[in-house]
Amino acid sequence: MPKLYTTDRILRFGDCDISGTAYYPAYMNILNNVNEEFWEHIGFPWHTTIKEHGWGTPTVHLSCDFNKTSSFGETLHFEMAILRVGTSSVTIKHRISCEGETRWICKQVLVASDLAKLSAIPFPDDVRAALLDWHVKADEIDF
Amino acid sequence: MPKLYTTDRILRFGDCDISGTAYYPAYMNILNNVNEEFWEHIGFPWHTTIKEHGWGTPTVHLSCDFNKTSSFGETLHFEMAILRVGTSSVTIKHRISCEGETRWICKQVLVASDLAKLSAIPFPDDVRAALLDWHVKADEIDF
Amino acid sequence: MPKLYTTDRILRFGDCDISGTAYYPAYMNILNNVNEEFWEHIGFPWHTTIKEHGWGTPTVHLSCDFNKTSSFGETLHFEMAILRVGTSSVTIKHRISCEGETRWICKQVLVASDLAKLSAIPFPDDVRAALLDWHVKADEIDF
Amino acid sequence: MPKLYTTDRILRFGDCDISGTAYYPAYMNILNNVNEEFWEHIGFPWHTTIKEHGWGTPTVHLSCDFNKTSSFGETLHFEMAILRVGTSSVTIKHRISCEGETRWICKQVLVASDLAKLSAIPFPDDVRAALLDWHVKADEIDF
Repeated sequence: MPKLYTTDRILRFGDCDISGTAYYPAYMNILNNVNEEFWEHIGFPWHTTIKEHGWGTPTVHLSCDFNKTSSFGETLHFEMAILRVGTSSVTIKHRISCEGETRWICKQVLVASDLAKLSAIPFPDDVRAALLDWHVKADEIDF
Repeated sequence: MPKLYTTDRILRFGDCDISGTAYYPAYMNILNNVNEEFWEHIGFPWHTTIKEHGWGTPTVHLSCDFNKTSSFGETLHFEMAILRVGTSSVTIKHRISCEGETRWICKQVLVASDLAKLSAIPFPDDVRAALLDWHVKADEIDF
Repeated sequence: MPKLYTTDRILRFGDCDISGTAYYPAYMNILNNVNEEFWEHIGFPWHTTIKEHGWGTPTVHLSCDFNKTSSFGETLHFEMAILRVGTSSVTIKHRISCEGETRWICKQVLVASDLAKLSAIPFPDDVRAALLDWHVKADEIDF
Repeated sequence: MPKLYTTDRILRFGDCDISGTAYYPAYMNILNNVNEEFWEHIGFPWHTTIKEHGWGTPTVHLSCDFNKTSSFGETLHFEMAILRVGTSSVTIKHRISCEGETRWICKQVLVASDLAKLSAIPFPDDVRAALLDWHVKADEIDF
């Protein structure tokens, strides 16, 4: 079984638009929260890497397919697969589902960046090792 | 010269994160604003289609490449190309630049949807005609 | 001891501005989330009252004192006191603190409203009873 | 006639909630945008004061009365009155209306702050002079 980071989020009032379903910019904010939780989980919380070590992980690529809408009040299940760990970048695939039904799929590339210079840096060794610990192959997952 | 819808947005305080550059969910909100402005421009403002006619245009696909960061206070130039007008869907490519430098590129697919049933509907004929009026071929644009 | 509803929220990356501290509109979104959680807790989740019963609780008054800034990554502790339950309105006082230090105080009035007519309605009896169950007097709290 | 800074904002799709009216955290974001525009207008854009001079103007007090809801697509008219200019703080009153009808009123206090130390500083003399140039007395305005 592939090693996936999983977590849940309730779709809140403030995440929904006039249709009563998720507003995609709010989805992106939730996605960023889930990423943030993952980095905390692996021992490198962003508030430490950014505030104490001066680097963060801006998103350089994002592609999303919103297959089914999600409604206000639903609990969304997030599954994160770390598909590739490069020198400075990490490729993540996310499946977001509700009661087993896929709602959206997202592929995202984050790049370690010096926030003062706004330029890419290699991941520190311990960060890279922590990310590799979660590495799964694309053919191991079904999304 | 291809027919592109263009508009500008200043990157505001509230759009930026701790790094002083755009937070990508805020970028998505701005993108949605630009789309909204376009629909108003072609004569079908969302507040009318949604509130009076019961249909909207949720995003079903989004792919973005963030090539260069944008900083708080910069004026971003948006160019929208309508690449495909289907029965219910419209494919849009956006280039966002600042002083001629491309900052990000985005491909987006919107689908006309009945908001009560949350299911796709064909574009009304006049909407489809208005969209086709802006149609450009992918090889006519350089992004 | 007064009956207060309490909950915690981590201040996330997306809630902070260029200074690395909370952006006040993000604070308001978190506040709304906390209110939403409270209504769920007392048995009247907004997604039910809004979607099934057609009424919600828009905010008609809000006053906030932001005494100390809160930083990215901090865990904020919310305490909610229900100070007054009227026919259609409820007055809430919130203290938000971190490790015992008050960060901000907020007084908020919500009004039960028919969302189709956008006009005030009396709270249904069971809702009113549930709110009264949490009623505390202003002099029972120290904020 | 009192000297008021005025500007307009269209209430966008992304500013509205499931009821089709403004979500108050979105209102706060718009309010912050309007403040930002004012500071730009008086010659001290935040992107300069923050990025080049290291100080900003966090909000320490905010009180709002939301008298009437505003709907998606409406154009809101903002009027800003500078009621008091202190050593480090400025007190602003905002009226937000639509076609002459007051929608909400807000009183806000901003404090000049060193963003590295997160502590209050006196306004630089030229900033103070620019603010005083917009000063109006509370009894000169009707909101």
